[in-house]
Amino acid sequence: MSTSTHQTEITVDPDVPLVRIIREFDAPPERVFRAHTDPGLVVQWLGPRRHEMRIDTWDCRTGGSYRYVHASDGNEFGFHGSFHEVRLCELIVQTFTFEGEPDGVALEKLTFEDCGDGRTRLSSTSLVDSFEDRDAFVASGMEDGIREGYERLDELLAT
Amino acid sequence: MSTSTHQTEITVDPDVPLVRIIREFDAPPERVFRAHTDPGLVVQWLGPRRHEMRIDTWDCRTGGSYRYVHASDGNEFGFHGSFHEVRLCELIVQTFTFEGEPDGVALEKLTFEDCGDGRTRLSSTSLVDSFEDRDAFVASGMEDGIREGYERLDELLAT
Repeated sequence: MSTSTHQTEITVDPDVPLVRIIREFDAPPERVFRAHTDPGLVVQWLGPRRHEMRIDTWDCRTGGSYRYVHASDGNEFGFHGSFHEVRLCELIVQTFTFEGEPDGVALEKLTFEDCGDGRTRLSSTSLVDSFEDRDAFVASGMEDGIREGYERLDELLAT
Repeated sequence: MSTSTHQTEITVDPDVPLVRIIREFDAPPERVFRAHTDPGLVVQWLGPRRHEMRIDTWDCRTGGSYRYVHASDGNEFGFHGSFHEVRLCELIVQTFTFEGEPDGVALEKLTFEDCGDGRTRLSSTSLVDSFEDRDAFVASGMEDGIREGYERLDELLAT
């Protein structure tokens, strides 16, 4: 099994409180999309390796919702949100709240772009309502968790 | 029946692409909240008088969703979104898309504040990911529809 080592580009927007994440995968859009919508696949890659992921709800359709827990060392971190829109192999628009900060909420858009040759470019944006919250999110070390999650997704897609 | 004539304050944020709407009502938070969550009440006030409102879905709970249509003069305008979080008599966080612009989406927060004496201050924010879209939304005449809807809500609350 070979796993690719694509870079995960994470940038902050200068004008609006938004984080942009771009990552390519060596798999076609259908497979990358399904790895986001099928809870049996999501649970295998989302988040850092040190956490065990438990999915309570993963109803990935327009109007559906999700909740999951990351657990490690006796600590549990809950996350929940709604799927505002799910377009097959193309787009997921969802909300996101880390339950440790229950008043915080982000609006996330994931677009799946066919790069040809069985490759996909996944572009995500995460929008919040203040630069302070956006910058605190970036400073929290979320980058490492996202990069590690995508490495795990590479491994899953290579199987 | 007397209806109040509270002002609807609509302001744009200078720093982030957000619209803020503040309105008081002469009714306690329980009643103003219920007028937002009960589809049989929502259909009586949401939007301008010239439209007939038809609700397809109004599942106002954390993780629920909605869709409705405003119809007038043979034209139909659809809107849909998800209820990210609903806290009884306190908070509604939801997404919002006008189906005429299916790629647009706003993240909305409604907070219901008890002002005492049977009055409620409703504060809403609507966040999008660009100033251009925010300003186009404001320029579209949304203010008139919101003000007229709240006048209809005054009338409903006075019954």
